[in-house]
Amino acid sequence: MSDAGTDAAPRGRPRSAAADSAITETVLRLLEEGVTIGELSIEGIARDAGVGKATVYRRWAGKNALLMDVLNSIDEPTPELAGASVRDDLVTMIDAIRRRGLAKRSSAVMRNILLQFQQVPELWKQYHDTVIVTRRDAMLEVLERGVRTGEIRAGLDLELLGDIFAGPMLSRAMMRPGASLEDGLSEQIVDTVLEGARPR
Amino acid sequence: MSDAGTDAAPRGRPRSAAADSAITETVLRLLEEGVTIGELSIEGIARDAGVGKATVYRRWAGKNALLMDVLNSIDEPTPELAGASVRDDLVTMIDAIRRRGLAKRSSAVMRNILLQFQQVPELWKQYHDTVIVTRRDAMLEVLERGVRTGEIRAGLDLELLGDIFAGPMLSRAMMRPGASLEDGLSEQIVDTVLEGARPR
Repeated sequence: MSDAGTDAAPRGRPRSAAADSAITETVLRLLEEGVTIGELSIEGIARDAGVGKATVYRRWAGKNALLMDVLNSIDEPTPELAGASVRDDLVTMIDAIRRRGLAKRSSAVMRNILLQFQQVPELWKQYHDTVIVTRRDAMLEVLERGVRTGEIRAGLDLELLGDIFAGPMLSRAMMRPGASLEDGLSEQIVDTVLEGARPR
Repeated sequence: MSDAGTDAAPRGRPRSAAADSAITETVLRLLEEGVTIGELSIEGIARDAGVGKATVYRRWAGKNALLMDVLNSIDEPTPELAGASVRDDLVTMIDAIRRRGLAKRSSAVMRNILLQFQQVPELWKQYHDTVIVTRRDAMLEVLERGVRTGEIRAGLDLELLGDIFAGPMLSRAMMRPGASLEDGLSEQIVDTVLEGARPR
């Protein structure tokens, strides 16, 4: 997994940023044109990017590592948390899912890549073990802080509670092409889950 | 859409149940073997099922209608609701999502079909407009009943509340291959959302 991130150590002689971006742009363009992940080859990518195969392998261990970088490059960045109100940090995190959903809708490439990732188990596992796990850990930290500050009641399964906060937005943003993702939705979800559905 | 359901009126002379099931079994087998929806043709399906093309068209208006029936045939049936406690009916509905998730995990065919459906917009729209909308309407009815009986507080956006109940299980069951779907999870989600995450 050490070669999957954008900060992987370069192999051999110093890498060229121009070659790197020519390579990732080529992968994006090919995916945009409808080439499947299965059809992509390092050889074809190198040829289309106008570089040698060795240039690709100097930077990436293989096709999966390259694809992970391409996906990360078009993903919405993880938001900074203010770290004061747990409610506000939850809104920030849920709103990042909403913005990723909007970006995915506006980007055929991203939709196509995500769908294809899900069909290549080792790629999905890698995306899950890096990107998704990092996001869930950040959620858990905020919820644990909430229990300490008294904003979240004690005794709840916090991993499940994280899914209860994130799941509604995930299902709208990622599973239902036509669902509403309007401004203010994240606040509404967080406040409803905090308050509860039955009368107080 | 009138030909999409299993109860579509037969066309022309009476249909043969044996031919019908030979046809749907053939589609399942082909999908199981990795044939994509794009590659499937009525001609190929008829040939493999040992029937004439006319036999297929007598029963289904086209490939999409046939595929909808195949998907419905392997889907978990919609559960009966007891209609007494709103909390219990919510548990029944959320648990149906959990059981579909377990079935999907155990069935490569179902996973493959669902993924492929999502990539054929008109097929996904048809599945959404029939199956998914029906399930969401059932959820809305239960929540409206809850507001009337006082089990759900008034003033909430009930469509969003439906997503808050269903979203956590949907994201576990449909989006995260390794997530826990243990017995009792539906009760835990429903009770946490009813009670709220902040102390009472």
